[in-house]
Amino acid sequence: MTALDDIRFLLHDVLQAPAQWQALPPFADTDADLALQVLEEAGKFVTSVVAPLQRVGDEVDCRFEAGRVTTPPGFKEAYQAFWQAGWPSLACAVEDGGQGLPAVLEGVLFEMLAGANHGWTMAPGLLHGAYACLKHHGSQALKDAYLEKIATGEWLATMCLTEAHAGSDLGLVRTKGTPQPHATDSSVRVNGSKIFISGGEHDLTDNIVHLVLARLPDAPPGPKGLSLFLVPKVLPDGSLNAVVCERIEEKMGLHGSPTCVMRFDDAIGWQVGEAHKGLNAMFVMMNAARLHVGLQGVGLLEAAWQKAHAYAQERRQMRAPTSTHGPSLIHEHPAIRRILDTQRAWIDGGRVLAYHTALQLDVAAHSPDAATRGAAQRWCALVTPVLKAAMTDQAFSGASACLQVFGGHGYIREWGIEQIVRDSRVAMIYEGTNEIQAIDLLVRKVLADGGAGITALLVELPASPHRDALIETTAALVQAAPADPELPYGVADDYLRTVALVLLESAWSRIHAASTDGRWTAPARAFRTWVLPECGMRLAVIQQRLKNT
Amino acid sequence: MTALDDIRFLLHDVLQAPAQWQALPPFADTDADLALQVLEEAGKFVTSVVAPLQRVGDEVDCRFEAGRVTTPPGFKEAYQAFWQAGWPSLACAVEDGGQGLPAVLEGVLFEMLAGANHGWTMAPGLLHGAYACLKHHGSQALKDAYLEKIATGEWLATMCLTEAHAGSDLGLVRTKGTPQPHATDSSVRVNGSKIFISGGEHDLTDNIVHLVLARLPDAPPGPKGLSLFLVPKVLPDGSLNAVVCERIEEKMGLHGSPTCVMRFDDAIGWQVGEAHKGLNAMFVMMNAARLHVGLQGVGLLEAAWQKAHAYAQERRQMRAPTSTHGPSLIHEHPAIRRILDTQRAWIDGGRVLAYHTALQLDVAAHSPDAATRGAAQRWCALVTPVLKAAMTDQAFSGASACLQVFGGHGYIREWGIEQIVRDSRVAMIYEGTNEIQAIDLLVRKVLADGGAGITALLVELPASPHRDALIETTAALVQAAPADPELPYGVADDYLRTVALVLLESAWSRIHAASTDGRWTAPARAFRTWVLPECGMRLAVIQQRLKNT
Repeated sequence: MTALDDIRFLLHDVLQAPAQWQALPPFADTDADLALQVLEEAGKFVTSVVAPLQRVGDEVDCRFEAGRVTTPPGFKEAYQAFWQAGWPSLACAVEDGGQGLPAVLEGVLFEMLAGANHGWTMAPGLLHGAYACLKHHGSQALKDAYLEKIATGEWLATMCLTEAHAGSDLGLVRTKGTPQPHATDSSVRVNGSKIFISGGEHDLTDNIVHLVLARLPDAPPGPKGLSLFLVPKVLPDGSLNAVVCERIEEKMGLHGSPTCVMRFDDAIGWQVGEAHKGLNAMFVMMNAARLHVGLQGVGLLEAAWQKAHAYAQERRQMRAPTSTHGPSLIHEHPAIRRILDTQRAWIDGGRVLAYHTALQLDVAAHSPDAATRGAAQRWCALVTPVLKAAMTDQAFSGASACLQVFGGHGYIREWGIEQIVRDSRVAMIYEGTNEIQAIDLLVRKVLADGGAGITALLVELPASPHRDALIETTAALVQAAPADPELPYGVADDYLRTVALVLLESAWSRIHAASTDGRWTAPARAFRTWVLPECGMRLAVIQQRLKNT
Repeated sequence: MTALDDIRFLLHDVLQAPAQWQALPPFADTDADLALQVLEEAGKFVTSVVAPLQRVGDEVDCRFEAGRVTTPPGFKEAYQAFWQAGWPSLACAVEDGGQGLPAVLEGVLFEMLAGANHGWTMAPGLLHGAYACLKHHGSQALKDAYLEKIATGEWLATMCLTEAHAGSDLGLVRTKGTPQPHATDSSVRVNGSKIFISGGEHDLTDNIVHLVLARLPDAPPGPKGLSLFLVPKVLPDGSLNAVVCERIEEKMGLHGSPTCVMRFDDAIGWQVGEAHKGLNAMFVMMNAARLHVGLQGVGLLEAAWQKAHAYAQERRQMRAPTSTHGPSLIHEHPAIRRILDTQRAWIDGGRVLAYHTALQLDVAAHSPDAATRGAAQRWCALVTPVLKAAMTDQAFSGASACLQVFGGHGYIREWGIEQIVRDSRVAMIYEGTNEIQAIDLLVRKVLADGGAGITALLVELPASPHRDALIETTAALVQAAPADPELPYGVADDYLRTVALVLLESAWSRIHAASTDGRWTAPARAFRTWVLPECGMRLAVIQQRLKNT
């Protein structure tokens, strides 16, 4: 279930991860054996504690009554065991109560968790982001009161961004933060309503720490007038803050995670970071959070593949074309092998890219060399939206393809595959819709520096015709965009897909260089045969659009 | 909701449907005005009676207790109104109690029904197939007892094919039919278990007529040893037959339709058609049933598009690239327009192909000219699996794309779009999985006659480079297949997609020729820009595989 052998090979042999992190001062002593041991223990915890709750989470759902949320049976006990075993703080600094391990190990942990139980995993999913945000932007008083509780996961955290009229467009946020001139603790009063707040209310922890985007009274309109406030469910004196959960949403999936409508009714809060720079404070967590959503995609697709693969090795129907008698295992039928091998091509290649990106997050933060840090930052900025969009698109469409392996049984709930399809669908939306990721990549990152960053990244990949065509197409887009403001928005999706496929091609080239056994042959062939051809189609769509400029 | 203006234009102006059916003796007097009036009334019935039950069907689900199935509130009343108004018998012969109208009108009715309430529509969905099967293969005694009840829909019908170990591979069916030497009414006793029986038990009608695939005692193994039996829930003397509903499945969607596990415990039945030729008797209904599933795809995608389109005309987020100030309607954002226009390209083109195919069903049955009948039969045999697979794939992926238009709201049940995604998923599986459709097309139909049929069909389409490439690729496959038995199974999916896209190109060329207003401009452009390019990619995949033969 946890696919630990694959993960070990990709981290160790393909990416040489230990050598990469050992070049960074905080991880100089983190050896490969320790890391593998951590992952092995993580796998055991996930399999024995979290995975068994996947079905009950979906069936029982969270319940809402009189402002309180009850999570499905077993969720609270599993979460208490999770934080008490130290899992949330894997990649937090030792001085904050953490384990001080590389980010990639936390990434693998959350990939495993999402595959085992996406709904449950939402609860601790925002912890590290909240930790990083508070660590970098919080006042000393706030850090003293909250940082360790969040680092260890004793208290859970939320990000309160969306409002009913402000989704992708956070500039429309109306929630207000009003300073209290006579408050001795520099507190503010927060008023407003937020929707789609994952874990806004629940019974997993004693306190919940909300990070709320709101406007100070003198704020300019738009996104540059947003400030960030920390608003706890329980105040330091033990009294309840004026934070009300009004209802939870009924959703397509992800039932184990309460999606809350939250009302702040003159709630007491404290500003985090500079006035009007709330989005900046949140951006600290953005790349890591988006990468984690990409890793959710990997984990969900792995879980779907495992189920479909197991079924295909048991179920017999009809004679396969190369068999002498039937019924054959459906795994022998070319249509079924194609589905399974294609998903493996995405999972394996996606893992290489996601783990590499997680390693680069640490390089960007800790390398002693400025140029190395810069290159790592560039990689993370450019590749993170690509991973987020491409791997969550694939998690949904690939899980649906895996459902197809089951035939009619796939549509029945007891087999569990349809839950993965429903759960995975949300990941294409949250943390910025996949369309927003494409615009982020092409408009805000590629075009913003005249294509310099992406080109520098691409020329360091192994040479290939697709890579070279992408470099040329990038140059053409840079040239044509100023005269045609709709152009980049019209081709952003195609551009992101092209980058994803060129990156996957490079990942498969790295796997090929490191692999000696037959494990990787079929997905490598599937990648070349059925995945990579999309690249030419996407480039043709962009080139056709360029002709019409 | 029923998109009647579009349907009218496509039937009347693009396909000139009335002229087509008036050339057939049974419909010589069926004029265009009558047909349009029937469709208008159908639209009213669907909108006022069936559509309002869509949500309750999903939320309340069917309930199972002690062998009885209760359908969601309102379902029974709606069904009673439906059959009493004569809707099930629209395309049944007048002498059987029907209206004697062309099959295409029934097709449009069921497209509307599926879009309005897929779950409810499952109940009458098999009626026409059962009618045709009984009419062509039933004994006079069986027809006297059952044909009119089925034609009018006073009694509902099922197809009992699948068993736990026999899904795509019906040759594995084990249910037995045992003749009773001393029975005066030539009845048999049926014993066995069937699964995935839509409407196997319910409270909509007084009787349910099961058509059951089973083996006679002297039957050879495999699919050529299957016979068909009619097994009613209530016997002619009014007593209950030994037909037991053991449970209903919990499914991803389609909650309004009970999916039953049925046990036949020495149940009394009567053979339909010849011994060991049960599959032949069922094939009568196969093309029509598959076409109807393709039309379900069209109807579901239309329903998803309507919801997303309406939302995109109301919701404002961010400034669109060509606007001077924001927030703009999200319909102005290129990424949203792309999603919506692309789905319209599939709906509009898919409608032309599906309606044309429905017209050809009647031509194949009723044309006085043998060559015309032959060409129509060829069209139906080749195009039906293409429509079934391509339109149901698109219904699911397109409904998911429409969900994306809603952002986070799309994932919330109250908006109704996620129900369409869940409901539509089953159509890729039932009536033969889409992978089976692809094998049916390429192996059983295209290669079986050396490519003659498909080539004859393609050369009559408007000339295009894609069409010509498909003709060439077909010839190459015909030549290479004998030496490489896996080849057609490996490329069947790509081949079906290529045929679908070439057919859609021809449909858009027909729309273009008939249209004078701007309604069709954006989807026509979307088809050329974003849909058709897949054709080249698919052909390249096939050609690459041919090189490896």
